[in-house]
Amino acid sequence: MEFVKNAVGRMIPTSINGKEQVPFMGVGKFKPTGHKHAPRISSCADYPLDGNKLMPDLTEALVRAGLRDGMTIGTHHHFRNGDLLALEIFRIAKELKVKNLVWFPSASFPCHEPIIEYLKDGTIHHIEGSMNGPLGRFASQGKMKGVGVLRSHGGRYQAVQDGDVQVDIAVIAAPTADAFGNANALEGPSACGLLGFALADSQYADKVIAVTDNLVPFPCIPWQINGNYVDYVVQVDKIGIPEKIVSGTTKISKSPDRVFLAELTAKFCDAAGLVRDGFSFQAGAGGTSLSIGIFFHEMCKQKGIKARFARAGSNQYVVKMLEEGFVDYILDGQTFDLEGVRSMRDNDGHVWTSPFTSYNYHGKGNFAGMVDIAILGATEVDVNFNANVVTHSDGYLLHGIGGWQNCLFGKCVILPIPLFRDRIPVIRDEVTTLCGPGELIDVVVTERGIAINPRRTDLIKATRDSGLPIRTIEDLKDEAEKICGKPRAAEFEEKVIAAIKWVDGTVIDVVRQVKE
Amino acid sequence: MEFVKNAVGRMIPTSINGKEQVPFMGVGKFKPTGHKHAPRISSCADYPLDGNKLMPDLTEALVRAGLRDGMTIGTHHHFRNGDLLALEIFRIAKELKVKNLVWFPSASFPCHEPIIEYLKDGTIHHIEGSMNGPLGRFASQGKMKGVGVLRSHGGRYQAVQDGDVQVDIAVIAAPTADAFGNANALEGPSACGLLGFALADSQYADKVIAVTDNLVPFPCIPWQINGNYVDYVVQVDKIGIPEKIVSGTTKISKSPDRVFLAELTAKFCDAAGLVRDGFSFQAGAGGTSLSIGIFFHEMCKQKGIKARFARAGSNQYVVKMLEEGFVDYILDGQTFDLEGVRSMRDNDGHVWTSPFTSYNYHGKGNFAGMVDIAILGATEVDVNFNANVVTHSDGYLLHGIGGWQNCLFGKCVILPIPLFRDRIPVIRDEVTTLCGPGELIDVVVTERGIAINPRRTDLIKATRDSGLPIRTIEDLKDEAEKICGKPRAAEFEEKVIAAIKWVDGTVIDVVRQVKE
Repeated sequence: MEFVKNAVGRMIPTSINGKEQVPFMGVGKFKPTGHKHAPRISSCADYPLDGNKLMPDLTEALVRAGLRDGMTIGTHHHFRNGDLLALEIFRIAKELKVKNLVWFPSASFPCHEPIIEYLKDGTIHHIEGSMNGPLGRFASQGKMKGVGVLRSHGGRYQAVQDGDVQVDIAVIAAPTADAFGNANALEGPSACGLLGFALADSQYADKVIAVTDNLVPFPCIPWQINGNYVDYVVQVDKIGIPEKIVSGTTKISKSPDRVFLAELTAKFCDAAGLVRDGFSFQAGAGGTSLSIGIFFHEMCKQKGIKARFARAGSNQYVVKMLEEGFVDYILDGQTFDLEGVRSMRDNDGHVWTSPFTSYNYHGKGNFAGMVDIAILGATEVDVNFNANVVTHSDGYLLHGIGGWQNCLFGKCVILPIPLFRDRIPVIRDEVTTLCGPGELIDVVVTERGIAINPRRTDLIKATRDSGLPIRTIEDLKDEAEKICGKPRAAEFEEKVIAAIKWVDGTVIDVVRQVKE
Repeated sequence: MEFVKNAVGRMIPTSINGKEQVPFMGVGKFKPTGHKHAPRISSCADYPLDGNKLMPDLTEALVRAGLRDGMTIGTHHHFRNGDLLALEIFRIAKELKVKNLVWFPSASFPCHEPIIEYLKDGTIHHIEGSMNGPLGRFASQGKMKGVGVLRSHGGRYQAVQDGDVQVDIAVIAAPTADAFGNANALEGPSACGLLGFALADSQYADKVIAVTDNLVPFPCIPWQINGNYVDYVVQVDKIGIPEKIVSGTTKISKSPDRVFLAELTAKFCDAAGLVRDGFSFQAGAGGTSLSIGIFFHEMCKQKGIKARFARAGSNQYVVKMLEEGFVDYILDGQTFDLEGVRSMRDNDGHVWTSPFTSYNYHGKGNFAGMVDIAILGATEVDVNFNANVVTHSDGYLLHGIGGWQNCLFGKCVILPIPLFRDRIPVIRDEVTTLCGPGELIDVVVTERGIAINPRRTDLIKATRDSGLPIRTIEDLKDEAEKICGKPRAAEFEEKVIAAIKWVDGTVIDVVRQVKE
């Protein structure tokens, strides 16, 4: 493996899984010169004229789709920890003795731990997508054959659109579908809200299979996936467990520390003049982020103002804000609870979006830059405001990027983080894995003070006399180290186990095997 | 010009406007082997981060889009005869001294007569799109520099998708838009319903300009056009005259002959067992077609049944059917009156579609084949059931194809036509221009009898004892000729003035200059 240093000083292999890589060149510096991926032209002559694309089962559909060694299989995480389909696909693949597949999920969850079996037996060669929890630990131990490739939600769309990843077969879990393949996630026993993560695959994959447990007569209205992109439809008993959409990161925090952090963040936004009539904010996952939304709701009530839109990750709290008239629109990329699902079905102001509209960096703009306040998490931040979201300080790859990198283009990006976790300081001299460049991160809020990126002189000026505990980031780091001691850097082997893509498809960092 | 004979016996030039052509090979016979058109990859780095793509005026937007000699300019006919934008584009082009443009409208109307000036002075080289009325006459007189290319609505999508036509600049009239370019036609003073004809251009054109007279704050909800595909937004006083959507072909017939024809057609459908619970039908333009819809509505009432969907061309009559609960869904491609616009805004069951979903033959299926009853018009039909919709029997090219060819894939295709018009028989030995092969046309209904295509033994059997005047098509032709005399064939010069594309991009016929 040859390495080159990228624009943030990280050593990047020139090739990953046999594909040449472009090292990160700086925000907005890499200019694509190519053309979008051009799928094969289909003909209606090869599809049933009466629109009936039903196959007897998923095995038959996968065989018809030409499943064979080395293919890339796209799946989607609308059910989050309640997904039932990915395991079924690879169970069938193993039964069919297919090897060396690339799994290309929009995210993975603890429910996908059994995928390890298929990684071990050679059914799956490697994963391109987030590897939350068990899969990430497996990869960090150097046990995955290929190198994992992590992308943001927008980066996944970009990669498919640009042909960086060519999806051979996409399997879409469709809570409601007709036999033509029109599908939505608003209705049916497994309603999970929307199917935005599958949009790229539907448009660009060679073969597309829609799997549903609620087949309706044509036309399935509304369609979130166009049947005109779908090759086969399969009816099964159950595609997912919507109750498990509510997984770890989508419950509101009851910890007093977190609530304090949330309140401090909301106060900062207010002091900086960001909470004003017609403002917009990102309502992300994570207890703190959810709590901040509640504070914004309260502030709107008190000020008699309303937000123009919330970018979501929808949840019961932002739905309440919509239904009480304190936000005009929820631009939703992913429902985080069943209230979100209900609202998306019932409220015209609760709009389904996709990584294309919201995040794709290789479009003619996207929504991310129009968000006034983006509240995000991080596992680590360094003194230059660079941040990490994928590895813990012990070096293990335990989280995906999600929409995090994409949201960094918001007008004011704030990371509310505790000063330390399990007595390990969160603010470091250098982050273990660099996922987001500091120039895009404006504010770090901790329970012991708020650090504003020196580049944001406007925010520094606006909050100077606010009475809020504004401090330098070095100052916060020193305080944490006084309490917990200077943290040790994680220790790694040479072996690269995963690459972290930037939103433009370049490689911003890599993750190496943890020395155990 | 070299010619080859195609599968329906018409002589087709091997090259048109310098582009190689594939002659029509038969229905479903041409299999595309290539890949879809791959637009250049954009980067958000080249677009304003705050999403504001507003340009001071259309001239500036066209200049920024790189308008220059020989480009192809896409526009759309959602305003039908009330379009104001096309003329403005070419006025500007002329002012900028740009020459030899290709105008690629989704349809043209009498309001576009002034385009002739630009065809004469060299601003426009030729038109690819329907040439209704004056423009068609101009072309038929051999006065257009290039050869016109007529495509169905689905064929236009296919051509753009497949890269047969590369749109350099698309200009989309947007009744409501935000500065990012999200747009819909449901709201605003110029609301015209939907923007489906612009979908292909938005996805595949190099540069896309949205022009609006109703700019709203981001986000414009719902969006029918994604701002992520839009380069520039222009605000103007008025983009179109929605009242003029109701042009010639969209008023209900009051002629007793037409009403009789409509009733006979409806009776035939009933006798053939096609009007049953859950059936579907095409509600097209044209007085007869509209009247038939009203008969279907009545039949549903009487039978206590309802239709599953109407493919439309929406109008007040089909809207009434929806609102009274006699059809579940209107799958609408084009609003034909302001009631259609209102209903599309107000009724969840009134769904906006596009030529992609409904008609594109180079997709993984489309909606056309799922329609039980397709009622269509024709200027001529021959004894082999081949039909013409673009030229009159005098040889003049006066109509576009619209969705006509696409709808031929319906399960039962019926042409209700008068036996003669202005004492000229409509049923001919051979049609002047062959737009649709007879194998796809099932029934011809005239005021003096119904001819069923001999291929449809099922329909013949089903209606044998219906008491309806079922006759052979030769019989009907003879009767007309007894009354009007044998019609003379139109006389043409050698010069080819237009090509008629089939839904798969092959050439099914050409139109020649009329001998005057």
